[in-house]
Amino acid sequence: MTTMPNWLKQRAFLTPERIAVSDGRRTKTFAELYEAAAVWARRLARAGVKEGDIVALLMKNRIEMIEIIHALFFLGARVLLQNVRLTSYELGWQLDDSGARLVIADEELAGSLDGDGRVLTVGALAALPEADVSFKETCDLEETATIMYTSGTTGTPKGVLQTYGNHWWSAVGSALNLGLHERDCWLAAVPLFHISGLSIAMRSVIYGIPMRLQTSFDPKEANEWIMRGDVTIMSVVAAMLQRMISELGEARYPDTFRCMLLGGGPAPRPLLEACKEKGIPVYQTYGMTETASQIATLAPEYSLTKLGSAGKPLFPAELCILKDEKPAAPHEAGEIVVKGPNVTKGYLHRPEATAQAIRGGWFFTGDIGYIDEEGFLYVLDRRSDLIISGGENVYPAEVEAVLLSHPDVEEAGVTGVEDETWGQVPYAFVRLKRGASPDEAALRAFCRERLAKYKVPARIYFVDELPRNAAQKLLRRELKRLIPKTEQTF
Amino acid sequence: MTTMPNWLKQRAFLTPERIAVSDGRRTKTFAELYEAAAVWARRLARAGVKEGDIVALLMKNRIEMIEIIHALFFLGARVLLQNVRLTSYELGWQLDDSGARLVIADEELAGSLDGDGRVLTVGALAALPEADVSFKETCDLEETATIMYTSGTTGTPKGVLQTYGNHWWSAVGSALNLGLHERDCWLAAVPLFHISGLSIAMRSVIYGIPMRLQTSFDPKEANEWIMRGDVTIMSVVAAMLQRMISELGEARYPDTFRCMLLGGGPAPRPLLEACKEKGIPVYQTYGMTETASQIATLAPEYSLTKLGSAGKPLFPAELCILKDEKPAAPHEAGEIVVKGPNVTKGYLHRPEATAQAIRGGWFFTGDIGYIDEEGFLYVLDRRSDLIISGGENVYPAEVEAVLLSHPDVEEAGVTGVEDETWGQVPYAFVRLKRGASPDEAALRAFCRERLAKYKVPARIYFVDELPRNAAQKLLRRELKRLIPKTEQTF
Repeated sequence: MTTMPNWLKQRAFLTPERIAVSDGRRTKTFAELYEAAAVWARRLARAGVKEGDIVALLMKNRIEMIEIIHALFFLGARVLLQNVRLTSYELGWQLDDSGARLVIADEELAGSLDGDGRVLTVGALAALPEADVSFKETCDLEETATIMYTSGTTGTPKGVLQTYGNHWWSAVGSALNLGLHERDCWLAAVPLFHISGLSIAMRSVIYGIPMRLQTSFDPKEANEWIMRGDVTIMSVVAAMLQRMISELGEARYPDTFRCMLLGGGPAPRPLLEACKEKGIPVYQTYGMTETASQIATLAPEYSLTKLGSAGKPLFPAELCILKDEKPAAPHEAGEIVVKGPNVTKGYLHRPEATAQAIRGGWFFTGDIGYIDEEGFLYVLDRRSDLIISGGENVYPAEVEAVLLSHPDVEEAGVTGVEDETWGQVPYAFVRLKRGASPDEAALRAFCRERLAKYKVPARIYFVDELPRNAAQKLLRRELKRLIPKTEQTF
Repeated sequence: MTTMPNWLKQRAFLTPERIAVSDGRRTKTFAELYEAAAVWARRLARAGVKEGDIVALLMKNRIEMIEIIHALFFLGARVLLQNVRLTSYELGWQLDDSGARLVIADEELAGSLDGDGRVLTVGALAALPEADVSFKETCDLEETATIMYTSGTTGTPKGVLQTYGNHWWSAVGSALNLGLHERDCWLAAVPLFHISGLSIAMRSVIYGIPMRLQTSFDPKEANEWIMRGDVTIMSVVAAMLQRMISELGEARYPDTFRCMLLGGGPAPRPLLEACKEKGIPVYQTYGMTETASQIATLAPEYSLTKLGSAGKPLFPAELCILKDEKPAAPHEAGEIVVKGPNVTKGYLHRPEATAQAIRGGWFFTGDIGYIDEEGFLYVLDRRSDLIISGGENVYPAEVEAVLLSHPDVEEAGVTGVEDETWGQVPYAFVRLKRGASPDEAALRAFCRERLAKYKVPARIYFVDELPRNAAQKLLRRELKRLIPKTEQTF
């Protein structure tokens, strides 16, 4: 068991005057960030937060969100980060499943949890008097720091436990891979409630570098910051990068910009070629909530020769392909299995799911891929049927479960279909109960009430039969064939 | 317990074609270093080396030494690094104390251990056939990787255990402090048998950067490498830096040179001022064998405003001053106590010395210092009486023990005296037995047989009485007053 000084406290002690965070208007040093977090911590203590509690955050990217995360670390509480795009039903489900004590919510988002006694708005928290409380001086790397829900193939969301150690080793592994410069500044235009955004906030404190924060992605502003040399590293998904390149026009980024970290699914070749032409240093990555951000990365010099590869693992991590429980040969597809100190210790309250996912120290991702003869990873399919839409994960089983809960629906299958803007969007295929009449609009409205917008099927087709194998298992990859030929765009 | 992939294996897999090491004539990539180490490992296995064995190295800086260290890691053996300047007696003592199975020695050094059946020269090892042996694929961060002997106040040398984790966290803490650039290259002109040199070899593999190696320090060549932009970071002690500046003349280092890591005791003000004037980025450090290199560092921007300070701890580490077993106030002197994952787990076969040095998770350095109101460390005295001569530690008690073993000597006291070239040199003060006649040359010759050259007193004075306190404890700091006034230069 390794303990370390609390990260923000240590950082504020070592380099108090360095810039910690800026949203382009407001800027805070590490000393100021520490002071602000300490005030929030004393208010949270007044609100009853104690060591070991789970406290949910339902907030959009802003400096206060970072402060409150650190405030909860000061108290030894575990932070459940909730996706602000989820429906009331989904949010409430996570709160009940996790046993969260409180939800700290932005005023504009608190309505999603109307009537839930656990909700405390940021404004209401700010109005609380400060309690006298002592802070945890150290963090234990084995302890859970944060929790994020993902669904996986079963369709039931599970809370991924991310320890201090997971975040620490992820930050260290990334620094050993990308290097660390005195003038680095990392732009977070991805949400802090995703691991892609949260990992930037952790790295800022661990590395002692500033982070730039966008409340929502603004490609024009992001480009301006990069052109001015304010930002040296940025995390994006393909759809974001595409918009930045369109916005950039003929201009080229300056040399100060050294890393475009591209995650959230495979990148289209024309995009990579456009980046190559413009001299944008794209690092393609492979990672997930369970690996506390990227676990493999492809350096820019390989971005075209190893097109479509996610590169090699970070220094502290390992990766292999298993086929029929044996290591696969080069170029042979199988399940991607990973290991490393950045990998989750499991799922909250889910010993069985944990035991199924982590076997012999290896985490079974459910993703399919292969490794070439030089050890470069190629991801073929995310978690069998995972749909990645604009960087958000959509689990077919979760959408199917909602469809099946409709009284008219007998069978449902969901799959991802290529989309120019979002990479993929979910399409649903439904067999209705005898006597029910098809009404796509009504069924989509039903989904909208129960699912975040990005999960709602872009199209719902009514069919007579769903493709199943001999064991009656739904063959999701064959669903696309059911799209009428006249509508097929692929 | 955290395990990691074997460092050299992982590095050779991730970045096989990057340069690992160069001595200015020969260069090896990480893939080549791995292959060479693998060959040595198979020969070492043939020589009988097994997992858990202690194997001593008696070698001067050269590429083969790095290869053999990694070869021993492949076999799970622990590497005892021996100072090549020690006498036969001192070397043999370490081998017996540690229970080393073998000593791998440079041909020119093997004579120091003439007749010792454990000695195998590098040439003889190279001539062995390769055995079929499987390598350790991972390293356990809790396991001992290397051992280095230090003496401390008692005068009895003790083997400091350095785990893989100590080296790992030292490398990571240093990278978080100094940054890590793609074009970094670290010059090791300090011995690899010291932690200052060994830590460079560990960092090279962990960071994936090349190291430059000098067999013995050559200030002209070091300056040339820096001027050419080949070297970006260098570890030095004050005497080395002084010679480099003299040799440099009016020239100035290019911007590619970004870090002069200065260890091995406090730096004289004129040296720091000369560096400031020449724009040399000096990082003053505080560290020891027990902390696997520096544990505190002063950034260049503070080198004159915080003159004499060793800065603040590395990110994963902590440091405090204890006076009468309580935390001292700012500016109040006391014992320097440190904590962190880079700190040794103790001394080989010395549970009592370990229990005395490590209490409640803190390592008691024996050094005296204070912390100012901003948290900057000032070291006043190294280990009470430690003499640092040209970067080598000289423990007065060890020299006194040798003097006392001479049949004519009744009492002996040793202290450090300022020296322009070496920083400090040891001076001895001896009370002879009744009837014995003083003969400085003979007594120094007696020491030369039993002590490494740098430990042999530069002067021996014969006195009637040694300064002692009421408890008859020798007051080493008062010894200097016994130097005849005519000879005093301080």
